[in-house]
Amino acid sequence: MKISTSDRAQVLTQALPYIKQYAGKTVVIKYGGNAMISNGLKSAVMEDIVLLSTVGIRVVLVHGGGPEINEVLAKLGKQPKFIGGLRYTDEETMEVVQMVLAGKVNKELVQRLEQQGGRAIGLCGLDGGMIKAVKMEGEHDLGLVGDITSVDVTLIRNSLDNGTVPVIATIAAGENDDRVYNINADIAASQIASALCAEKLVLMTDVRGLLRDKDDEDTLISVVNVSEVPSLKKKGIIKGGMIPKIDCCVEAVRRGVKRTHIIDGRIEHSILIEMLTDEGIGTMFL
Amino acid sequence: MKISTSDRAQVLTQALPYIKQYAGKTVVIKYGGNAMISNGLKSAVMEDIVLLSTVGIRVVLVHGGGPEINEVLAKLGKQPKFIGGLRYTDEETMEVVQMVLAGKVNKELVQRLEQQGGRAIGLCGLDGGMIKAVKMEGEHDLGLVGDITSVDVTLIRNSLDNGTVPVIATIAAGENDDRVYNINADIAASQIASALCAEKLVLMTDVRGLLRDKDDEDTLISVVNVSEVPSLKKKGIIKGGMIPKIDCCVEAVRRGVKRTHIIDGRIEHSILIEMLTDEGIGTMFL
Amino acid sequence: MKISTSDRAQVLTQALPYIKQYAGKTVVIKYGGNAMISNGLKSAVMEDIVLLSTVGIRVVLVHGGGPEINEVLAKLGKQPKFIGGLRYTDEETMEVVQMVLAGKVNKELVQRLEQQGGRAIGLCGLDGGMIKAVKMEGEHDLGLVGDITSVDVTLIRNSLDNGTVPVIATIAAGENDDRVYNINADIAASQIASALCAEKLVLMTDVRGLLRDKDDEDTLISVVNVSEVPSLKKKGIIKGGMIPKIDCCVEAVRRGVKRTHIIDGRIEHSILIEMLTDEGIGTMFL
Amino acid sequence: MKISTSDRAQVLTQALPYIKQYAGKTVVIKYGGNAMISNGLKSAVMEDIVLLSTVGIRVVLVHGGGPEINEVLAKLGKQPKFIGGLRYTDEETMEVVQMVLAGKVNKELVQRLEQQGGRAIGLCGLDGGMIKAVKMEGEHDLGLVGDITSVDVTLIRNSLDNGTVPVIATIAAGENDDRVYNINADIAASQIASALCAEKLVLMTDVRGLLRDKDDEDTLISVVNVSEVPSLKKKGIIKGGMIPKIDCCVEAVRRGVKRTHIIDGRIEHSILIEMLTDEGIGTMFL
Amino acid sequence: MKISTSDRAQVLTQALPYIKQYAGKTVVIKYGGNAMISNGLKSAVMEDIVLLSTVGIRVVLVHGGGPEINEVLAKLGKQPKFIGGLRYTDEETMEVVQMVLAGKVNKELVQRLEQQGGRAIGLCGLDGGMIKAVKMEGEHDLGLVGDITSVDVTLIRNSLDNGTVPVIATIAAGENDDRVYNINADIAASQIASALCAEKLVLMTDVRGLLRDKDDEDTLISVVNVSEVPSLKKKGIIKGGMIPKIDCCVEAVRRGVKRTHIIDGRIEHSILIEMLTDEGIGTMFL
Amino acid sequence: MKISTSDRAQVLTQALPYIKQYAGKTVVIKYGGNAMISNGLKSAVMEDIVLLSTVGIRVVLVHGGGPEINEVLAKLGKQPKFIGGLRYTDEETMEVVQMVLAGKVNKELVQRLEQQGGRAIGLCGLDGGMIKAVKMEGEHDLGLVGDITSVDVTLIRNSLDNGTVPVIATIAAGENDDRVYNINADIAASQIASALCAEKLVLMTDVRGLLRDKDDEDTLISVVNVSEVPSLKKKGIIKGGMIPKIDCCVEAVRRGVKRTHIIDGRIEHSILIEMLTDEGIGTMFL
Repeated sequence: MKISTSDRAQVLTQALPYIKQYAGKTVVIKYGGNAMISNGLKSAVMEDIVLLSTVGIRVVLVHGGGPEINEVLAKLGKQPKFIGGLRYTDEETMEVVQMVLAGKVNKELVQRLEQQGGRAIGLCGLDGGMIKAVKMEGEHDLGLVGDITSVDVTLIRNSLDNGTVPVIATIAAGENDDRVYNINADIAASQIASALCAEKLVLMTDVRGLLRDKDDEDTLISVVNVSEVPSLKKKGIIKGGMIPKIDCCVEAVRRGVKRTHIIDGRIEHSILIEMLTDEGIGTMFL
Repeated sequence: MKISTSDRAQVLTQALPYIKQYAGKTVVIKYGGNAMISNGLKSAVMEDIVLLSTVGIRVVLVHGGGPEINEVLAKLGKQPKFIGGLRYTDEETMEVVQMVLAGKVNKELVQRLEQQGGRAIGLCGLDGGMIKAVKMEGEHDLGLVGDITSVDVTLIRNSLDNGTVPVIATIAAGENDDRVYNINADIAASQIASALCAEKLVLMTDVRGLLRDKDDEDTLISVVNVSEVPSLKKKGIIKGGMIPKIDCCVEAVRRGVKRTHIIDGRIEHSILIEMLTDEGIGTMFL
Repeated sequence: MKISTSDRAQVLTQALPYIKQYAGKTVVIKYGGNAMISNGLKSAVMEDIVLLSTVGIRVVLVHGGGPEINEVLAKLGKQPKFIGGLRYTDEETMEVVQMVLAGKVNKELVQRLEQQGGRAIGLCGLDGGMIKAVKMEGEHDLGLVGDITSVDVTLIRNSLDNGTVPVIATIAAGENDDRVYNINADIAASQIASALCAEKLVLMTDVRGLLRDKDDEDTLISVVNVSEVPSLKKKGIIKGGMIPKIDCCVEAVRRGVKRTHIIDGRIEHSILIEMLTDEGIGTMFL
Repeated sequence: MKISTSDRAQVLTQALPYIKQYAGKTVVIKYGGNAMISNGLKSAVMEDIVLLSTVGIRVVLVHGGGPEINEVLAKLGKQPKFIGGLRYTDEETMEVVQMVLAGKVNKELVQRLEQQGGRAIGLCGLDGGMIKAVKMEGEHDLGLVGDITSVDVTLIRNSLDNGTVPVIATIAAGENDDRVYNINADIAASQIASALCAEKLVLMTDVRGLLRDKDDEDTLISVVNVSEVPSLKKKGIIKGGMIPKIDCCVEAVRRGVKRTHIIDGRIEHSILIEMLTDEGIGTMFL
Repeated sequence: MKISTSDRAQVLTQALPYIKQYAGKTVVIKYGGNAMISNGLKSAVMEDIVLLSTVGIRVVLVHGGGPEINEVLAKLGKQPKFIGGLRYTDEETMEVVQMVLAGKVNKELVQRLEQQGGRAIGLCGLDGGMIKAVKMEGEHDLGLVGDITSVDVTLIRNSLDNGTVPVIATIAAGENDDRVYNINADIAASQIASALCAEKLVLMTDVRGLLRDKDDEDTLISVVNVSEVPSLKKKGIIKGGMIPKIDCCVEAVRRGVKRTHIIDGRIEHSILIEMLTDEGIGTMFL
Repeated sequence: MKISTSDRAQVLTQALPYIKQYAGKTVVIKYGGNAMISNGLKSAVMEDIVLLSTVGIRVVLVHGGGPEINEVLAKLGKQPKFIGGLRYTDEETMEVVQMVLAGKVNKELVQRLEQQGGRAIGLCGLDGGMIKAVKMEGEHDLGLVGDITSVDVTLIRNSLDNGTVPVIATIAAGENDDRVYNINADIAASQIASALCAEKLVLMTDVRGLLRDKDDEDTLISVVNVSEVPSLKKKGIIKGGMIPKIDCCVEAVRRGVKRTHIIDGRIEHSILIEMLTDEGIGTMFL
């Protein structure tokens, strides 16, 4: 159905001030979940990123790539191994993780953005010493899974200054050794956003946002002040897989990112809607 | 009625490339007719200009002010006098024209743009020696009506560079004398657009555009190549009051303005629709 | 009589260091009184301003225009009304004040400066939100006479940076309403000078300066420290119409203007003499 | 044995003018062969590149990675297939080529340069649309082996401007399709050098240079004018595997690279010796 | 006698446009003759140069120093030797010439300019390879007297850009040998003015200018077009010592210096009068 | 004997990081002693300075010139007179000192640096008011020997910024009078280095450095912390002519120069060896 002239005018008069507000500002988007699997959603995400970048918003795209890693491991006859939901990464697996994230997924995203008319550059934590890490300490030995010790955003800044969208695969160089470490992409995105003093961090997920009642989408909480998070955890509203994601949001806000968002990647153009309309989507932390 | 999320996304994905295309480019808008009388339309025009300026488009607003001049002349007990549709401007009338255009209409537009959150500066052809003129030669003596001899856009460029919308009253300094001349606003807008190598010149009128059959709005001609204009005149499709307006459009295109438009100022947000949607409004000359 | 070569050399060796001292500095001149009425004095003032601007001094010209306002009011059959020496400004009068100041006097000064070879731009307090005001509170209701609440000198700075002399008509936009207010030009000049951190504020008047004995020009006080002003008021040396002018001088010095001057606009080239010779003219406050 | 003070002084007085000469100039190094396999040589090459970059020479490192590709193909149980010395690249192989070149070899070189104190960024032909290609036409169908159609060095220039060594894996985006193509690294290095108007192109090989008698290293030809190449081919002095390498050298010189070199990568610090001493190494084409 | 206010205003309104005209322009002054001997004149010249430099004129001071050289030669018991009016310069004399010009006269002028509040730097033709020369060829062997082969004004430009007055002693480095050559200061000034595309070259002399009748100062020729010079020579109006000076003026005009002047250094402040008044002094060539 | 390829590589890999470290940094070299007399050493010093300057190190050369002064005094039949090791400088002597230092030695060094391909400018303490002094107070009246009261390094900085080596003769303008003063070159170099916040001050001497046993060069002390100096004086290890030199070193370090060096000017290329090799030469103070 055709959209009327006055509806068009209304959408535009609403969006323009947002464009003005975000122009020249930095937005870090963690790309993952269904939005990375469905071909239609993938296209819409790429389109959104190119459009935002087109009007002068500095977009940084951070990605993981679990399903693709498993696929290559399978071809090599290697069984993925998870401990407490985290991938156990031995040396051979790490080599595959690096090749798939930095050589396959990363470059495919770059090529798609370029095909949409954008300008993109594929980077990983090794480039320019961007991300340094040490072996993660914890209950279980996870092999080459790393904890970030420092983030150097020089290359990211240079890329943004040159009008290019940096696409970042989350592997890191050892702070104290010559190894390469596998890094959780949500955490990397959060820390990169902090280091860039980003305006926004957007985590794309497969849920509507934070729900008061997880079975009822109408109970979506639109805005959470980070000081409320402990009480929401105590009440069991924040729980399970949402905990680490929301911790990333809280941490980013605490370190200076203005606003962080958990949005539903399953909705087409969710990024555009979130950024350029009064409505918003998902849950915002501030 | 609420506009759906996917409709919003569609309007935005359509508009963003236009914003990118016009960002940093100059658009000269000749403001006049009903859009300058109705309070609602006035507000919408001011809103459109502020929004376009907000996203980095360099907007120049050129205006006349016939009705307000007549009003003041009336208060002074002076009868307006027209010869062949043009105002006969004696010295006393010219003094009123100058005061009303540069002191009343111009400053009121500035104040309205400022109130909408824009940044505006009111100028006239005397400022910085912007417009120079000589007495118009013609069949009838029109008094202090002038023909433009030169346009210096330095002040306009400076204002645009400083992120300000220049609002321009079309009076001019005498090239060879100390007098002030009254200048036709369509012609001034066309020449200013040429001197600025503007991307667009938009003339707001009280008609839908150029109609093949003047009584049937469905016969609107959307695009006219300037080389077709002579034949359209011969066929009587361009006639009457449209002739000087279209001559301004043709002249501007010939001197390097990419595209010129005659749009219907009676439609709300006609400028925004023309500039940021695929549809367009009115007649475009190229 | 011809001036001798050695006299010329002496005047120049004296003036050059002043030119060096003021080059790049800002001087705000309040133009008014006889210097604005006599055609000869008008020409000399315009010449002085163009010359100072020529050698790199940043001159700002602030003006009122009482006599011209009265003239137009008379033509409209409207009696000017003064309460306690201040013009009562009803809505209709305000419209005339705006048209005359911003559309007539202001633009005429611009045109004269341009004709002398200068580069000038005519502004008023509405442009770029330069001057904001509220209704003046006081014993008597003066209508739309305003008290300044804020001064934004961005446009003035931009004009000076572009080598242009800003000529400023002292009307203001309502801080809390959509009205336009009439502002005292001495006060506006003083506040603009403060906001610009000007080197000098010069008020042109129709007196020699501050005289110890008002009937004896030989009793001129050349220099007054602002701390002496209260005692000079007590002694009755500062009195009557001089009080508000000297208050403007004191206020400007207190807010950071290096020196303020009350000079005699009836002396030809009084500005040039004041600024580029050892003698000086009138009374300086520091 | 300790080097004497006067020998040190001699080496330095010789090298400094070269450093001055090359500072700010661009040198493209094609890295391959034994220098990429032996760990000792690898270290020396990385050291040389970091040192040259340290003193302000703009070094671009272009690499292939045949042996590592074969290794991963073997793990996947896939037999490499060569036709006329060129790798037949089906889709599955291409995926491995991309992962190994852009994800493994490229990032390992980046990490080594960073460990040596350099600043490096890993790129491939997909980033920023750097290399575009079409399917190679020829006698045999080689699958996804590509011929370069365009080179865009914007990202390389940006990286060099930011003091970073770009390390480039030679895969390319399809000019007319969405595929990724495998590109010969010597040819890519040659074309990148041309596009950058490089001062030098250095191809690291496993031979001493061009020998008049291939079994006698004392018959090394130090300098070849590109106009002599056809006659050297006719005489059979340039033959076999040297032909394509020397064609790359000739092509680069013809397109504006000042000098191209075939040097012996088996000699430690061969790059440093070639660039900063009077002696030189290998064969220079000009 | 006191100069009246209106006389002061007249001198200033006359001078200011000249200051504007010359600000940022380069003027080369050849300093010599009586103005370099009388202490009073010396002071006035230094004062003039500091004042001109103060208001932004780029002044270059070129000087000789014959009398002072003779004085030191005398102390060393060495007889000056002249051939055809030119100093025969053997090696020992050259050493004295260099020491006196570059070490004594030059540095004394620098110190005097600094004492007057100016900023000066003492240079000679050896600094920065400014002046290169070969042995002068001619009828007589004059020893180390040189003909200029090239002038490099980089150092002079740098000094001017830094707001410093370059004071230049006219000795030169051998183009083809390691010797130092003695250079005629008028010629050096002329060539430096050409190389700088100076606005003016001013030669200070001990005559009123070019006189039609050399015994009658009222026959001064104020303006000479360089095309008239051959005829003036033929008529004997230009003769004797004036010939080489006027040749320098003509040569400079031919190579792009706008105007050259021969002025009377015996008149106090002759430079200031020449540059900042309508009258002018001496003879101008154009 | 030919230096081997691997030795060359070793020297270069050692030197390059030093070049990087010092590039853009300022090094002040006090040139004097034998290195200023022997022709071979002179050449090597000039070569070193040109090379260091070539690779972007900002070198300042400060010099005295005792032997040459004596030579000219002798020619003038004037006996040099020393009191307590310091030259008694009467007015006539001072005139000679100025001419020889600023006109002869200074300009000869400039010419030599230029001949080696460098870019040099000869300055003295009078230029740009660089060094101001008062008559030295002390036991004995030394005439026009001065104590530095202020150092203005503007001209030195400008010269360095323009890629020129400033060569500085150490005479100074009187702070309170019009005289010129003779300044000790070590002290001047130390104070210039402090004022420039130099990275290094290097004093060239005719000794190996500070020796524990002055007759045994193997007892050289390579590094001295300035806090050890008092105790080294007490022990008599620092004594005689070394005391003022080392005081200069200590003073410079105290005022912010990173490192100061006393090196043996009798060793060829001692500056290059000191700056670009791991070994170093002489004694370093920090």
